[in-house]
Amino acid sequence: MLTTAREPVADPTNQDLALVDAYWRAANYLSVGQIYLLANPLLREPLLAEHVKPRLLGHWGTTPGLNLLYAHMNRLIRARDLNVLYVTGPGHGGPALVANAYLEGTYSEVYPDIGEDEDGLRALFRQFSFPGGIPSHVAPDTPGSIHEGGELGYALVHAFGAVFDNPDLIALCVVGDGEAETGPLAASWHSNKFLNPVTDGAVLPVLHLNGYKIANPAVLARVPAAELAALMRGYGYEPHFVTGDDPAEVHRLLAATLEEVLGDIAAIQHAARGGAVADRPVWPMIVLRTPKGWTGPKKVDGVQVEGTFRAHQVPLSRTRANPAHRALLEEWLRGYRPEELFDDTGRLLPHLRALAPTGTRRMSANPHANGGRLLRELSMPDFRDHAVPVGRPAVESSEATRVLGGFLREVVAANTDRFRIMGPDETASNRLDAVLETTNRAWNAITVAGDDHLAPDGRVMEVLSEHLCQGWLEGYLLTGRHGLFNCYEAFIHIVDSMLNQHAKWLKTSRGIPWRAPIASLNYLLSSHVWRQDHNGFSHQDPGFIDHVVNKKAEIVRVYLPPDANTLLSVTDHCLRSKDYVNVIVAGKQPALTYLDIDAAIAHCARGLGIWPWAGTGHGEPDVVLACAGDVPTLEAVAAADLLRTHLPALRVRVVNVVDLMRLQSETEHPRGLSDVDFDAIFTTDKPVVFAFHGYPSLIHLLTYRRTNHRNLHVRGYQEEGATTTPFDNVMLNDLDRFHLVMDVIDRVPGLGESAAGLRQAMVDNRVAARRHTREHGEDDPAIAGWTLRSGN
Amino acid sequence: MLTTAREPVADPTNQDLALVDAYWRAANYLSVGQIYLLANPLLREPLLAEHVKPRLLGHWGTTPGLNLLYAHMNRLIRARDLNVLYVTGPGHGGPALVANAYLEGTYSEVYPDIGEDEDGLRALFRQFSFPGGIPSHVAPDTPGSIHEGGELGYALVHAFGAVFDNPDLIALCVVGDGEAETGPLAASWHSNKFLNPVTDGAVLPVLHLNGYKIANPAVLARVPAAELAALMRGYGYEPHFVTGDDPAEVHRLLAATLEEVLGDIAAIQHAARGGAVADRPVWPMIVLRTPKGWTGPKKVDGVQVEGTFRAHQVPLSRTRANPAHRALLEEWLRGYRPEELFDDTGRLLPHLRALAPTGTRRMSANPHANGGRLLRELSMPDFRDHAVPVGRPAVESSEATRVLGGFLREVVAANTDRFRIMGPDETASNRLDAVLETTNRAWNAITVAGDDHLAPDGRVMEVLSEHLCQGWLEGYLLTGRHGLFNCYEAFIHIVDSMLNQHAKWLKTSRGIPWRAPIASLNYLLSSHVWRQDHNGFSHQDPGFIDHVVNKKAEIVRVYLPPDANTLLSVTDHCLRSKDYVNVIVAGKQPALTYLDIDAAIAHCARGLGIWPWAGTGHGEPDVVLACAGDVPTLEAVAAADLLRTHLPALRVRVVNVVDLMRLQSETEHPRGLSDVDFDAIFTTDKPVVFAFHGYPSLIHLLTYRRTNHRNLHVRGYQEEGATTTPFDNVMLNDLDRFHLVMDVIDRVPGLGESAAGLRQAMVDNRVAARRHTREHGEDDPAIAGWTLRSGN
Repeated sequence: MLTTAREPVADPTNQDLALVDAYWRAANYLSVGQIYLLANPLLREPLLAEHVKPRLLGHWGTTPGLNLLYAHMNRLIRARDLNVLYVTGPGHGGPALVANAYLEGTYSEVYPDIGEDEDGLRALFRQFSFPGGIPSHVAPDTPGSIHEGGELGYALVHAFGAVFDNPDLIALCVVGDGEAETGPLAASWHSNKFLNPVTDGAVLPVLHLNGYKIANPAVLARVPAAELAALMRGYGYEPHFVTGDDPAEVHRLLAATLEEVLGDIAAIQHAARGGAVADRPVWPMIVLRTPKGWTGPKKVDGVQVEGTFRAHQVPLSRTRANPAHRALLEEWLRGYRPEELFDDTGRLLPHLRALAPTGTRRMSANPHANGGRLLRELSMPDFRDHAVPVGRPAVESSEATRVLGGFLREVVAANTDRFRIMGPDETASNRLDAVLETTNRAWNAITVAGDDHLAPDGRVMEVLSEHLCQGWLEGYLLTGRHGLFNCYEAFIHIVDSMLNQHAKWLKTSRGIPWRAPIASLNYLLSSHVWRQDHNGFSHQDPGFIDHVVNKKAEIVRVYLPPDANTLLSVTDHCLRSKDYVNVIVAGKQPALTYLDIDAAIAHCARGLGIWPWAGTGHGEPDVVLACAGDVPTLEAVAAADLLRTHLPALRVRVVNVVDLMRLQSETEHPRGLSDVDFDAIFTTDKPVVFAFHGYPSLIHLLTYRRTNHRNLHVRGYQEEGATTTPFDNVMLNDLDRFHLVMDVIDRVPGLGESAAGLRQAMVDNRVAARRHTREHGEDDPAIAGWTLRSGN
Repeated sequence: MLTTAREPVADPTNQDLALVDAYWRAANYLSVGQIYLLANPLLREPLLAEHVKPRLLGHWGTTPGLNLLYAHMNRLIRARDLNVLYVTGPGHGGPALVANAYLEGTYSEVYPDIGEDEDGLRALFRQFSFPGGIPSHVAPDTPGSIHEGGELGYALVHAFGAVFDNPDLIALCVVGDGEAETGPLAASWHSNKFLNPVTDGAVLPVLHLNGYKIANPAVLARVPAAELAALMRGYGYEPHFVTGDDPAEVHRLLAATLEEVLGDIAAIQHAARGGAVADRPVWPMIVLRTPKGWTGPKKVDGVQVEGTFRAHQVPLSRTRANPAHRALLEEWLRGYRPEELFDDTGRLLPHLRALAPTGTRRMSANPHANGGRLLRELSMPDFRDHAVPVGRPAVESSEATRVLGGFLREVVAANTDRFRIMGPDETASNRLDAVLETTNRAWNAITVAGDDHLAPDGRVMEVLSEHLCQGWLEGYLLTGRHGLFNCYEAFIHIVDSMLNQHAKWLKTSRGIPWRAPIASLNYLLSSHVWRQDHNGFSHQDPGFIDHVVNKKAEIVRVYLPPDANTLLSVTDHCLRSKDYVNVIVAGKQPALTYLDIDAAIAHCARGLGIWPWAGTGHGEPDVVLACAGDVPTLEAVAAADLLRTHLPALRVRVVNVVDLMRLQSETEHPRGLSDVDFDAIFTTDKPVVFAFHGYPSLIHLLTYRRTNHRNLHVRGYQEEGATTTPFDNVMLNDLDRFHLVMDVIDRVPGLGESAAGLRQAMVDNRVAARRHTREHGEDDPAIAGWTLRSGN
């Protein structure tokens, strides 16, 4: 059982609650003002049509609930000296968070053009959901937010990500009853099994049941209370219900409930940190049931609005043209009694301002919400220490991700407070298990004898939900820490839409001077398309990089290191970078090594380059064999070897591409090669046969503006995978060495008889390889064991 | 309370259970055989190295549990004459479902080369996860399956989709404890609030806790039983626990529990169908807790395997090289006593075969699992009846999706047993609300006064989860029905990965002769990128079509109807089609109409075409202005109008593209235009300025092989959206009419002074338009209200 360590806090007096109510009214007033008003912000004169915005856009429905929680939490932050981050699930309640940041003074600090006076109020109102202004949702522009409120479902997982390794932080997470229907949110509740009460902070979820979405009731608002309580207990929380539509009563109930749950949180943490080994604690949560659009117009045109889905956006829609609507709006605004809230200059009255905390205790100024400011660089061990020796290229083998695992082990060990590895149960499967020599898997649920590296303080986070892995990592990065998400390549598409939102956050943040850069979001995609022969077609999809490349060029980087040492170099680079989305695709199977560590570093720095040893040296070529990705590189190098052996007069240039963005024009991407440099490598007129890891169209998309694009022929994944052997899958997609040789022969004119013979031999090889596979159930060892035969 | 309607079924005798056990052993034997054996399938001789596969691939861990449920259900199907579909969440347990299909004779019926004799057994074993053979997962190849088992998380939502409008069907849905951690699965439990016990069938979820994933324990296996029970009650189910590791005891317990829950299901349905208005029933579910890899090797090399994560794949990995491992394998196989199960020819003994049902009652032959066989065509009202009159093009306006809503209302009304519309709370927002004149929103939770069109029999399914919308629809389509998923364009990326799996299912199914075509998966994406000005950047993403286009060409179709009548024609076409993924992008805002219904039909049939009335008539052009999408079409037509007015000597050809796939080469896509036809429209040497709905790169990707690609210049979404007005967002991305005119002037040589003046006027127009927007908060009415000014 819990030992108690509750700070005795005096019950709030009626006067306290009156102050909270006044603060709430002030926030509500500013929220309505933002949605409706262009001018006359303090209602010093009667409300006229021209004071109202011509185009009404915004979401009132969720706003009063967000403001209510904010006001109450303000009081408790002061009373208990808490460190609280406010995570807004119903992010379309943007007006609420903006209003509170303004009331706390933070808004004017970061946006000096929005001052704390009547002019500032007018500007604050006007800019909301107005051209050139701010979005209607909580967004990077909103001080105190780490959470874009556009796409719903990720509030709770972001909140957990934020409190990992932040033992003093409490994330107050408002979960909308709409977003509670999403899959990611439904799974997020289980994050409590991955939280360590000793070294992590706490999440206080508030499920806000205002009952409705845009047009429908919310499911969780329409199940019996006992069923909802069972659901929360089943998720491992103790629910506390706060229900009402009378402000005074709700104030009393909410204040008492918040006191209780904050006491519970303190008690849980005290007990855990006192050294007692305890079972997973049952954390508290709150179910807050208040009307949608509370304190807004009750009825409009004879139809009930408050407490229904009709309050979702703007309850009064014709306030310019319809004087009755406008009168209702004025009545609504005046009902908050602004004259009791703001002084003559438009500033919040001092006794109200005193309710809110100051400095970094203000939720709108919590430094965790501007994680870049707290970012401490990773302590980086030297990745060169983990290099594999490479004598002659393409002779020895290593498992690239296993080599990387050794380096990551040292990164984990050197950064036990700021680096985590996420993955859907695949960290060992992806051969990164060396990290378990220095840490465990985070786990705070039942353990049994025989369990493998499970402990509450583990820094490897594994759950069979790509959504949770991604969301935890986003929350962790946005609050100023570092991490890596390792995943099967095919199933990373599960988080396509989350990636979109994070990339949008990064792009927007770059334009906001007060937001400091954060660590990059790093993906390591292994178990990739070319080694999913045994799992078959359903596990084969290299398209995530296509998806990523559509994002803004200054945000995205895609790396395809061909071997172990290049993987080390690329990963070191990514872990040091800021504000990017880095995607690394690398194999886990034994694969040939090509470059020693110094060559690897130089090659990765260039991003692509000619491999003279793989081709016919340094001269001008007759054909370029390009490659990107470990398996295509193997096939291209093997194809070049065949060509050198059998067509010694043919000059072959082998080009390997690590950094895919180098292929784009410099006008399109900051890493893009100039046309001069591109032409120097790929020639202006010679055939280029490109063996690519992913869909061939991506290479065309990146290079269609290049001089020599008309001679570019790309092989890659054609959605022709099957249950077979690795080499057979490569053949099914015409990416194999034999087909590459055929492609070269078909494109270089005047090769003569010996080439025709070689071509036929390649056709025969393919037939023989297929036959061997079908008969023996494995690849021909002569192919699987191929190494570079020609001299270096 | 429930009234009872339980069929009295005799308790199973010991003899019954002995038969079930033998059947289970047979299925387990065949499962192990598939994973391990190349030859000697009945162990008629001692097991030699060469009898074992060289490459061991497969998942044993989940398999005995799947077989156990299958055997028990067989008995009950016969006893109660049930119609049961088996949905396999842990789809990597492919050997189990294949084994059972074989035991029931279905396998040999659909694959006559796999006979019911020793040769057939050998072939059955050899093909599993073997080159040229079948995947290790449940897949389209597996008789009785609607569920690809590769990507986890969708079993339960598929099961619900299958039973909608199938009142006699029970979907036995095995939920793996791994996939239970995924977001989509966590949300799927709430599907019971959308199921009508009168007209829908039942889902019996079995949460199979075998405790482990690949390397980790499963979360739900490591919470206290009371917590798990609370979770299930919170989801609205009554859990029944079956726990054990002694087969005899588990047989007794499982048999009794299945009797009880099937009785409960019958009672619920009887009560509901008796006409009593009842609250949402509490459906039963089962928590089955048995060891992972049950009946497999207990220890290998001194390490516990059975009951741990080590049993996930192949418990014995070196059965060729290591005689001790091989001896364990032989002992394991012989432990099932195959000589008591199969006759001398290798056929299952008749008294065991008699345990399974026959004909279409066999789960492996349930016709719902081959939905195309049950498919009844939609009864299609005439979409022409809903056409809007169009006199002169580009003069009148209509809201395209609102017009479509009228047609869909008639489709719903004419197909009340086989057509559903899914959407995440956006059907009304997307202006399809006319459908609510003939049906309701499906809802079987608490209702209150003021609710809008909620009823258990609703055919519009709305939940704030794109995963549930997609999954329900997939399950519905795969069992032979029809539907439409309407969604905000940006957030459809949430189901990217589900789309991948469905497209893979369709592609694979096309190669399986016994699988009949099913209705297409139809998306209507509205609230699209160009009208998310008010919601801002987070709601702007046109990239789903890029994602879709990467799928196999014969599966995907993308339509961008420019106005109301073309939307009608395209939708009619899509609803009639089979085995495609159709993506339709259409606006909901008032927009100009261009084509009367006859012209619209002709235009959509061609897929693209020249609009002489928008350009300078039929002659050879100086420049081509192409467009795809409603907003780009408006801008292109307006730009052409400006050019005709101000540069009357310039010959402008306006081309509108409805069917995006027409742009690809005919060698790349079955709908692709021949080069001759393409060149006739786009010319071989004139500048082409293309105004596109999505990312410009997609148009390049589709056309880079075309003769005139070097002269193609595409405008589209550049990730430069903001919170502003519609036209301002178009300008931010340089897609506006003024910029298109500038693009034309910049690309057509020799236009002279007047063009330079026009160009400057366009620059000035852009500045003025931006200024108007910033000052007034809305678009200049002169732009927003533009209609075609020139003569037709």
